[in-house]
Amino acid sequence: MEQITRADCQAMDQNDPLAFLREEFHMPEGLINMDGNSLGALPKSTIQKLEQTIKEEWGIGLIRSWSEAGWFESPIRIGNKIAPLIGAKEGEVLVADTTSINLFKALAAASQMNKDRSILLSEEGNFPTDLYMMQGLSTLSNNRLQTKVVPPEQLLDALTEEVAVLLLTQVNYKTAEIKDMQLITQKAQEKGILVIWDLSHSVGSIEVDLTAANADFAVGCGYKFLNGGPGAPAFIYVPKRHQAIAQNMLSGWMGHADPFAFSEDYQPKASIERFRAGTPVMLGMSALESGVDLFQKTSIAALRKKCIQLSELFIILMRQACGDYGFQLASPTDAAQRAGHVAFSHPEGHAIYQAIKRQQIISDFRTPDILRFGITPMYLRYVDMYDVVAAIQEVMETGAWDRAEFKVRSAIT
Amino acid sequence: MEQITRADCQAMDQNDPLAFLREEFHMPEGLINMDGNSLGALPKSTIQKLEQTIKEEWGIGLIRSWSEAGWFESPIRIGNKIAPLIGAKEGEVLVADTTSINLFKALAAASQMNKDRSILLSEEGNFPTDLYMMQGLSTLSNNRLQTKVVPPEQLLDALTEEVAVLLLTQVNYKTAEIKDMQLITQKAQEKGILVIWDLSHSVGSIEVDLTAANADFAVGCGYKFLNGGPGAPAFIYVPKRHQAIAQNMLSGWMGHADPFAFSEDYQPKASIERFRAGTPVMLGMSALESGVDLFQKTSIAALRKKCIQLSELFIILMRQACGDYGFQLASPTDAAQRAGHVAFSHPEGHAIYQAIKRQQIISDFRTPDILRFGITPMYLRYVDMYDVVAAIQEVMETGAWDRAEFKVRSAIT
Repeated sequence: MEQITRADCQAMDQNDPLAFLREEFHMPEGLINMDGNSLGALPKSTIQKLEQTIKEEWGIGLIRSWSEAGWFESPIRIGNKIAPLIGAKEGEVLVADTTSINLFKALAAASQMNKDRSILLSEEGNFPTDLYMMQGLSTLSNNRLQTKVVPPEQLLDALTEEVAVLLLTQVNYKTAEIKDMQLITQKAQEKGILVIWDLSHSVGSIEVDLTAANADFAVGCGYKFLNGGPGAPAFIYVPKRHQAIAQNMLSGWMGHADPFAFSEDYQPKASIERFRAGTPVMLGMSALESGVDLFQKTSIAALRKKCIQLSELFIILMRQACGDYGFQLASPTDAAQRAGHVAFSHPEGHAIYQAIKRQQIISDFRTPDILRFGITPMYLRYVDMYDVVAAIQEVMETGAWDRAEFKVRSAIT
Repeated sequence: MEQITRADCQAMDQNDPLAFLREEFHMPEGLINMDGNSLGALPKSTIQKLEQTIKEEWGIGLIRSWSEAGWFESPIRIGNKIAPLIGAKEGEVLVADTTSINLFKALAAASQMNKDRSILLSEEGNFPTDLYMMQGLSTLSNNRLQTKVVPPEQLLDALTEEVAVLLLTQVNYKTAEIKDMQLITQKAQEKGILVIWDLSHSVGSIEVDLTAANADFAVGCGYKFLNGGPGAPAFIYVPKRHQAIAQNMLSGWMGHADPFAFSEDYQPKASIERFRAGTPVMLGMSALESGVDLFQKTSIAALRKKCIQLSELFIILMRQACGDYGFQLASPTDAAQRAGHVAFSHPEGHAIYQAIKRQQIISDFRTPDILRFGITPMYLRYVDMYDVVAAIQEVMETGAWDRAEFKVRSAIT
């Protein structure tokens, strides 16, 4: 097979119908952000929007901005903008709190809806906070609710009538493997189980259809592919069919039917807004809204197509340039099964990650040996794939990772 | 008694040792923010600090800023800056989530520590979210925990050995009345009750000494007197003596002993950091830190002294200029019992609030008839007290409130 050159990659960029989107981002000179699945890049529009939120809405509008600048409605307004990205309907997505807190809200509501059952089920390899929130709820219930975490291959067999809630992440945070949301939801619901999907590594990256999958709840993250900023507020999805019965146990005043009546009895709003708790962090909300608005310039389908092309190119280039250095593809080889990042395992993964970081390539490392490369089609170019692989090749050839990282490796192993 | 003139107030400003602090704030021309107890003003330093967080730390530093810009440690770092404002020690205050969420964490932890007791006690007139979070926890416990809300005058009698947790707000959100934290804590603890104090209307306004009061838990708000911005992150206080046993039931990954080990079992940090849950909203954290840093330029004692002087002046001027218009002081007359706002009740309170708002005076209204005026000594002047009262007087004399607000009043009553 013929070698792919840097010029070939540049040609791909010239033919890229999404190339214009890169202009929307603040891109530091000489740096390649291969970690947009951990923290998305800064949109230029966000700089302006935050300036307005800070100087005008806060500085001049002050408390009036809760009504006059649309602050109060922002959780539902931004939720409605996220909805089409995940196959949800208007009024089914709310932006609030963090992913962990929203996981708790969903777990607590779902386990209450399935009150005669006792098991909270998930699988090994799920993101730790998902498992930890289950454990917290179990402790709080005095062990009326039990957590059960099974190996992925035993998951379908574990769907029994003792299970109240199944919590899964659609896209694995280490491998980027995509689960069959529709199939698993159906199998679980056949046993009367309520299913919560964590979309943290899905939203803004792959096509998600919560409505078609008939999901019971979902949560997701604002700071990865949505480019909402560090620690951006998260979201929760509750379909209309559950909104009258699902209870928010974190029943703060903002979820009250009439918060400014200051009634002493909690009466939840008759909508997804009952899943609000405290006051939204407006600086975070504002940045997130700006990030989400960028999705109006394209479609998830177009982004997904480019993501697959970039990922396939990256994998081929790694084979071409670094095939002899012991990297193992830790993500599915089938692009249809692989979401927005590509993972390689390597016994010296942490040292390699540090060495390319010094070359201004931001990637990520996950224990014990996973190098994660986030593939964000909004701002990454085909030539970036080439340059990243060339940098890895150089690091491996020169042994730079080995000399420089000896101390670090000693400390972490 | 001789009338106080505007010139008298200007003279007071000239002699004010804290006058320099106003220069630290972005003060819109012609506007008076008498609502800093709802949303504090924008510090100029915050504009700069946020620019750095946005453009440099996020835009260029990207994910590296979690370690290199101190993002990861920000919850404990900012907590340590808040600690001296509330009589807490280093390592006893953590910034995270919202006040509502932190109330839940404290209530859940405390009720677990007093497991053989069943009552969550509070008083009528407490801020609704405090009562709502108790109700949510009660529902979640399948009513093993029962909420009990008594009139304030029956509070001491309600401190019995069935009570697991007492939750009170130190400063009443309507009247600004200050509770005797030390006495009530002692009375409750004599019965084995754990006491949680909500400091939302205290922190940054009055002298608070959690250590002297031997409080068991506390929470508080970042967007009022701390000037942390709209929906700023909140804080939780857990004294060292409880940190090994108090459990965070909202056990997210950031509170794990080693979050980046990605272990599947939750092991809490051996410090207050176990009360972290998800990823902190860094834009909100950064603005809060900047607001809190301003307190290093003065002391709570000095601020409190000026607050009392401003409040007393405001009350005297209201009597002098508006004594005939039916306003009733709804706050304690004794300055020592009254915190950082002054409340007046008036049957047409909402219309008056709207009318002075049109004159660029931001105050607040709380049902059914309370006008709240926040007294924030960091940026309010003595002459502001005069001008606000003059505006109220004009509104009452001309009847502007009545004509303009007829529609609004019809709609809300």
